[in-house]
Amino acid sequence: MRLPAKLWSLTATEVLTLTERDLVSVEDYAKALLSHAGSRDGVVEAWQYLDPDLVLSQARALDRVPRDQRGRLHGVAIAVKDIMDTKDMPTEYGSALYWGNRPSADASLVEILRRAGALIVGKTTTTEFTVLNSGPSTTNPHDPNRTPGGSSAGSAAAVADFHVPLSLGTQTGGSVIRPASYTGTYAMKPTYNTVFGGGIKVASLEFDTIGYFARSIDDLKLVTEVISVTAEEPVEEAALNQVKIGFVKSPFWPSAGPGTVAAMAKAAEILRRHGVAVIEDVEFPDAFSDATTLARMFGVVFAADAAVAFYRDYLMDTDKTKLDPRIRAFVDDAPKNSRSDVRQAFDYYAALRPVLDEIAGRYSALMTPSAIDEAPLGLGDMGSPAFNSVWTAAHMPVIHVPAFVGPNGMPVGLSLVARRYDDQRLLSIAKVLSKPLMSEGGWQIRS
Amino acid sequence: MRLPAKLWSLTATEVLTLTERDLVSVEDYAKALLSHAGSRDGVVEAWQYLDPDLVLSQARALDRVPRDQRGRLHGVAIAVKDIMDTKDMPTEYGSALYWGNRPSADASLVEILRRAGALIVGKTTTTEFTVLNSGPSTTNPHDPNRTPGGSSAGSAAAVADFHVPLSLGTQTGGSVIRPASYTGTYAMKPTYNTVFGGGIKVASLEFDTIGYFARSIDDLKLVTEVISVTAEEPVEEAALNQVKIGFVKSPFWPSAGPGTVAAMAKAAEILRRHGVAVIEDVEFPDAFSDATTLARMFGVVFAADAAVAFYRDYLMDTDKTKLDPRIRAFVDDAPKNSRSDVRQAFDYYAALRPVLDEIAGRYSALMTPSAIDEAPLGLGDMGSPAFNSVWTAAHMPVIHVPAFVGPNGMPVGLSLVARRYDDQRLLSIAKVLSKPLMSEGGWQIRS
Repeated sequence: MRLPAKLWSLTATEVLTLTERDLVSVEDYAKALLSHAGSRDGVVEAWQYLDPDLVLSQARALDRVPRDQRGRLHGVAIAVKDIMDTKDMPTEYGSALYWGNRPSADASLVEILRRAGALIVGKTTTTEFTVLNSGPSTTNPHDPNRTPGGSSAGSAAAVADFHVPLSLGTQTGGSVIRPASYTGTYAMKPTYNTVFGGGIKVASLEFDTIGYFARSIDDLKLVTEVISVTAEEPVEEAALNQVKIGFVKSPFWPSAGPGTVAAMAKAAEILRRHGVAVIEDVEFPDAFSDATTLARMFGVVFAADAAVAFYRDYLMDTDKTKLDPRIRAFVDDAPKNSRSDVRQAFDYYAALRPVLDEIAGRYSALMTPSAIDEAPLGLGDMGSPAFNSVWTAAHMPVIHVPAFVGPNGMPVGLSLVARRYDDQRLLSIAKVLSKPLMSEGGWQIRS
Repeated sequence: MRLPAKLWSLTATEVLTLTERDLVSVEDYAKALLSHAGSRDGVVEAWQYLDPDLVLSQARALDRVPRDQRGRLHGVAIAVKDIMDTKDMPTEYGSALYWGNRPSADASLVEILRRAGALIVGKTTTTEFTVLNSGPSTTNPHDPNRTPGGSSAGSAAAVADFHVPLSLGTQTGGSVIRPASYTGTYAMKPTYNTVFGGGIKVASLEFDTIGYFARSIDDLKLVTEVISVTAEEPVEEAALNQVKIGFVKSPFWPSAGPGTVAAMAKAAEILRRHGVAVIEDVEFPDAFSDATTLARMFGVVFAADAAVAFYRDYLMDTDKTKLDPRIRAFVDDAPKNSRSDVRQAFDYYAALRPVLDEIAGRYSALMTPSAIDEAPLGLGDMGSPAFNSVWTAAHMPVIHVPAFVGPNGMPVGLSLVARRYDDQRLLSIAKVLSKPLMSEGGWQIRS
């Protein structure tokens, strides 16, 4: 057997077929990744922290693990958003207040991945506490003049640019799915709180959800199975002619740009041609159909949560020089939050959850935009989560499929959405749907 | 002025009047507390960790803080439930898996209190991860043959037994209010997620709420104002003849014992006699009036959350000897949790919240039992959270008033409950109501 010349270009699932048979050592694999990342990161700047010596020593330690004691992710390289604690690397939350911060323990998610044999490569860039809309110098691997999206900027860029096959992010509004769309990778945001957030910096306890970037659905499935305690029984893949799609333009459709409008139309056309049984337009019910109200309610919950989550940081910033004024404002403005508005906003999204579940339950999956359009030019605007926030707030699992190309040659993808806790079912449907979409949509994940 | 002979018996508010005028040093106050606690803890066993030298060195450091830089809680002694991280003491979560665990940072709440000048005295006992119903050898200060209640056993006992004026606990079902009732202290569980839980071991992300024990309402108010970013404007105290009480026996009333039945009747009688304008019986609406359903739904959410929260611990317990089998079972049984049951249970309590808020909004406060009855005999059964869980799950603020005495001479209290985010209003009403209740109810907080 000839080994692939570009080891760094493989998906996690592909690498495992080599390392499982000892055709490639974890050390050699790590060297290939580090060499590729090193050649590229001057432009992309995906990494907040990457110590090649630490990576290689971890890789050698993994190579020494006896074969019968190796985990399901043995040697799989994973990048970690720098808001997740790591016991052997700094964790700075994108904040000057935490420069050089060294937690003593891994975040729960990081530790679970390590126990499965993952090689934690380094920490990827984030905006300050994930809540600002600019900050990192990370660029889009497909055009250095464009943003990779935020807040999980480095995690998206590192996977899109083949530095690692997998990376971890978090999403409060659209911080995973949007950068996945901008950088042309797959990504998944599982059902809320099916993966524990311990050791991960919180912005909104009600909305924060972990997520992960990959270059294949199989890799998303692999990670999901390792980290989820609540994984259901495997779901068989449906035939396309049994699939029913709910086509959700969503109340935010008027903001969709030409790339997204074209992607939605092309997706429907491809799927119809491939014999998908039903593609039906789905509207939000009247009580939840006003985009302004949806956005305002999201903002009220977020502001209430952020003030609580950042209060310690606010107090620690004694000379008021380290936190961005917009972070400090969450605390300063908290007394102005009307209590009845806050109650109403929490209850609004709580009431929306069963409504959207019921709608999603009528279909194999919902299909909806992942972003307004292609990645914006410049690094000062990391894009809008308009199309993502409602699904995050609804706690529903979302998979991004990077199938299309916008007017400027940049990737544009779509979101597939399922009921809460139907993550395995969503993975299965996403695999079925992504085949025709990826082969005919126009975007190719190519090294 | 003569100094009190029993410094250790003062409330925090009382101690502050002395330390603020330098009539007592923090060191002398700490010595008085340590001496009293030392004389008592052989019986009570409230402490998981207490290092007198560390306490005294912290006290001396506080004494050196210039007067104009002192915080609002300068020198106030606080005990911390041993599921909250402390940077200078072990944090063991009541679990053999974490024996000797030394976090590198304080829990957010602990750090906020330290920044306000609090003297963190030590760590108080808890059941394993707060979820078991026995474990610590802590006894009830009023009868060593009885439980202090759980899971915040040590925090309740330490305040009730005058080792400290204030202590921190957490409540997922009834782990603060129930031990407060059993030990005859005041306690408060604020509105859910108005105080950040970072650095505190999680059992249920949906239900876990911090709480605190004290020996006066003023002390509860003091802590609330220091730790809450969302404190509203102060609320004026109402006259008793303007107060309207909603008297909630709750769907769990059939389980109430003679002590609780008598306490509820006596409360109504005292308040009527003191001119409270309205005391009205309030029923739960039909959709939420079945105790079995309420308890089952609570259990479904809790099981789903606990499996996620404990998954890392489960994996760390490689030889399956350190976690209690009942903790391991949350993870082992997770695949059996029906996804539709889990969705339904989360939505059930989400739908209950605005319903109970609306009811509570009609009254100055709701009044409802805090526990089934007096503290049970023995340490093997720490009591039932039956009367507490619904309010915790509803995310509403609760204050326990320890006003009554049961058939065996043990304390029995009542809960006052308000709408979410009406914490300041609840504190104000609790102060007004507790005066006649405490003076005529029969239970006295006496050293």
